[in-house]
Amino acid sequence: MHCQFICTQCGRRYSFDEPKLRCDGCGEPLEAIYKSLKPEVEGQGSLLRKFRGFYPFGDVSEAMSLGEGRTPLIQSSVAGGQLGIDALYFKDETQNPTWSFKDRGTLCGVQYAISLGYKRIGTVSTGNMAASVAAYGARAGLSTFILVSAGIPAEKVKPIAVYGPHLIRVKGHYHELYDESLRVGEGYGIYFINSDAPFRVEGSKTIAFEICEQMHFHVPDYVVIPVSSGGNFRGILKGFEEFKSVGLIDDIPKLVAVQAEGCPPIAEAFEERREKVRRVRNPKTIARAIENPYPPSGNQVLRKLGENGGLALTVSDGEILDAQRLMAREGVFGQPAACAPLAATKRLISKGYLKPEDRIVLIITGAGLKIPSALDHLDVPIISTAVDGLMDAIGKVVEGSS
Amino acid sequence: MHCQFICTQCGRRYSFDEPKLRCDGCGEPLEAIYKSLKPEVEGQGSLLRKFRGFYPFGDVSEAMSLGEGRTPLIQSSVAGGQLGIDALYFKDETQNPTWSFKDRGTLCGVQYAISLGYKRIGTVSTGNMAASVAAYGARAGLSTFILVSAGIPAEKVKPIAVYGPHLIRVKGHYHELYDESLRVGEGYGIYFINSDAPFRVEGSKTIAFEICEQMHFHVPDYVVIPVSSGGNFRGILKGFEEFKSVGLIDDIPKLVAVQAEGCPPIAEAFEERREKVRRVRNPKTIARAIENPYPPSGNQVLRKLGENGGLALTVSDGEILDAQRLMAREGVFGQPAACAPLAATKRLISKGYLKPEDRIVLIITGAGLKIPSALDHLDVPIISTAVDGLMDAIGKVVEGSS
Repeated sequence: MHCQFICTQCGRRYSFDEPKLRCDGCGEPLEAIYKSLKPEVEGQGSLLRKFRGFYPFGDVSEAMSLGEGRTPLIQSSVAGGQLGIDALYFKDETQNPTWSFKDRGTLCGVQYAISLGYKRIGTVSTGNMAASVAAYGARAGLSTFILVSAGIPAEKVKPIAVYGPHLIRVKGHYHELYDESLRVGEGYGIYFINSDAPFRVEGSKTIAFEICEQMHFHVPDYVVIPVSSGGNFRGILKGFEEFKSVGLIDDIPKLVAVQAEGCPPIAEAFEERREKVRRVRNPKTIARAIENPYPPSGNQVLRKLGENGGLALTVSDGEILDAQRLMAREGVFGQPAACAPLAATKRLISKGYLKPEDRIVLIITGAGLKIPSALDHLDVPIISTAVDGLMDAIGKVVEGSS
Repeated sequence: MHCQFICTQCGRRYSFDEPKLRCDGCGEPLEAIYKSLKPEVEGQGSLLRKFRGFYPFGDVSEAMSLGEGRTPLIQSSVAGGQLGIDALYFKDETQNPTWSFKDRGTLCGVQYAISLGYKRIGTVSTGNMAASVAAYGARAGLSTFILVSAGIPAEKVKPIAVYGPHLIRVKGHYHELYDESLRVGEGYGIYFINSDAPFRVEGSKTIAFEICEQMHFHVPDYVVIPVSSGGNFRGILKGFEEFKSVGLIDDIPKLVAVQAEGCPPIAEAFEERREKVRRVRNPKTIARAIENPYPPSGNQVLRKLGENGGLALTVSDGEILDAQRLMAREGVFGQPAACAPLAATKRLISKGYLKPEDRIVLIITGAGLKIPSALDHLDVPIISTAVDGLMDAIGKVVEGSS
């Protein structure tokens, strides 16, 4: 299928075999566009095979796949009940090969890199994306470069290192590192599948595709997404837009971009009706996966929010941790960033922006096990007893709660 | 569908509404049996709905489901290549709601408990099963009791506690605790979904069902399973037996039970051609999920291995950690117990028991993130640089590896 890249701001075009992440002219992110999409969504196999009508790869090899995607859409009972919303759903991206949504975009990015003949890939990340790219790079037999910032917490290093990438700890700001990675990539033939690389965004489309299928093509009113670079947000929206363009759905949900109070570049610009994000000084939030002080797709998210009629807002770390516990009380344990959508929904219900009759999907981006330290403040009421005291101990609990 | 329980040793029968875990007569585990199975394996929905012809629950509510099962079968390239096996597969159970195979059996056990009118459930576990039962208990709105042993490592407590169960730390041996839990359960109306409860075993059947589907009903020659209590082993075998009984498959694979050298009650009895397992003194292995010194279904596993023509063997902690790294080098990161099957396959290939042309499925029981400390000994070659030294640093790697 014919595919090009187009600048999301100025419309300048680039050919499929120019592996760029942003426009030479205006520096804004690029997006893949197709001459024609084929509304085929049937069949077995990996996401790129199942949705091949929406990708330029033809009949891909299944050898690159680790079984990503096809994650459940779980109807909330506890949180939904508490908020008075009947149709509240968790799209549980924690059930992916490396336990976050990143695997969809990584598969897609690796496929693109391979189709261009690359033998080396990389990424700049200290979190979900690092593990994901390391895993898929290993799977594809590519030489894989993971650039992490010097301040990476120890608990995060080994779950990346285990996949065997070249792990490089770089002193410097994230944005310098991001820019330098592209320069190094050109120099050494390394395709950097960074957070808003066009084909990473193409991978995130499948979240929207699956939501459509799971809701029998009757789309929700709102989709609530934790937003960092903006790549996942862009991909999910693009997925709905493409399904609408081929007639599989009639409407596009409103999108809600959630950021942390401690790092809100997009939400702040949205609030102040600015067209451009500004760099956040001293970002700080427990939701590390959305702690991006200067999101490369930030301006594009703002443009899209305008078209879409959605909104951006912030939630506090306290609200995020409350939401984490609330979600776990119905069996879904997300990492802090993954719990921001529920925190945001709570806010928006209390403000009257969301209504009890709305159908709302929350994107649960990554697994709670990713950041064990986020549970440090969890108060654990634990009962201790010897075996012969067990009957009594349980008796007290049972009587106390009845 | 008519369902009874039968003692796996003496054949004594119990009715469906007697929530027993073992035979009153001989103390051996019970198993669910059906008058007739219906070979229907089509359709959407949770495992209990999809495979409803193999369960006594009829058309179940989907509200209990967290999207368990439907895990990928991934063909190995790196390990398979290294061992010279073409058809080596990972059944990746890490992509479950609480990131282990336990979720299948927990769903099934909860469904059984609810169908008998229980309002309280529990389990005895410090690992995967504790998190799983806590999650599904929360999901189902049941009062949930998790009994953990006094020596539980701190890193394991909070990922269980987050789901909000009654967490009870009990001083005493595991087997005492197991027995006492059943007594307490009777006393207070708590259904303990322990490791080899009949309906937990029924949940594990779906692993076999899915393997059959994923291999187009042409079953593998071998399925290699980490074995602790024996419940999962029994369930997988039962799944193949049931599919054969209804004519969906023609053969039953040989099963390989893998244990750790530091805790090998079943493998030792198998080796010594004993009919009964003996309690292991001072069990010690990095593969904590299979560190069960006196497995309640151990004798039944021995009986079944005899009928099936399979075998049991041990692997060392060193072999397990090697296998963990090898699997991660193709994108699959399992917890130590989950890597024992690959370690065993390596041994069995070198002994000539397994042949390069065999079709082999390894059960990857739980996620690597479960036990971060298992990576403590991982040697991480990490390169450090400032941003302006990145080009040089990567240049050295590229030149060094080409």
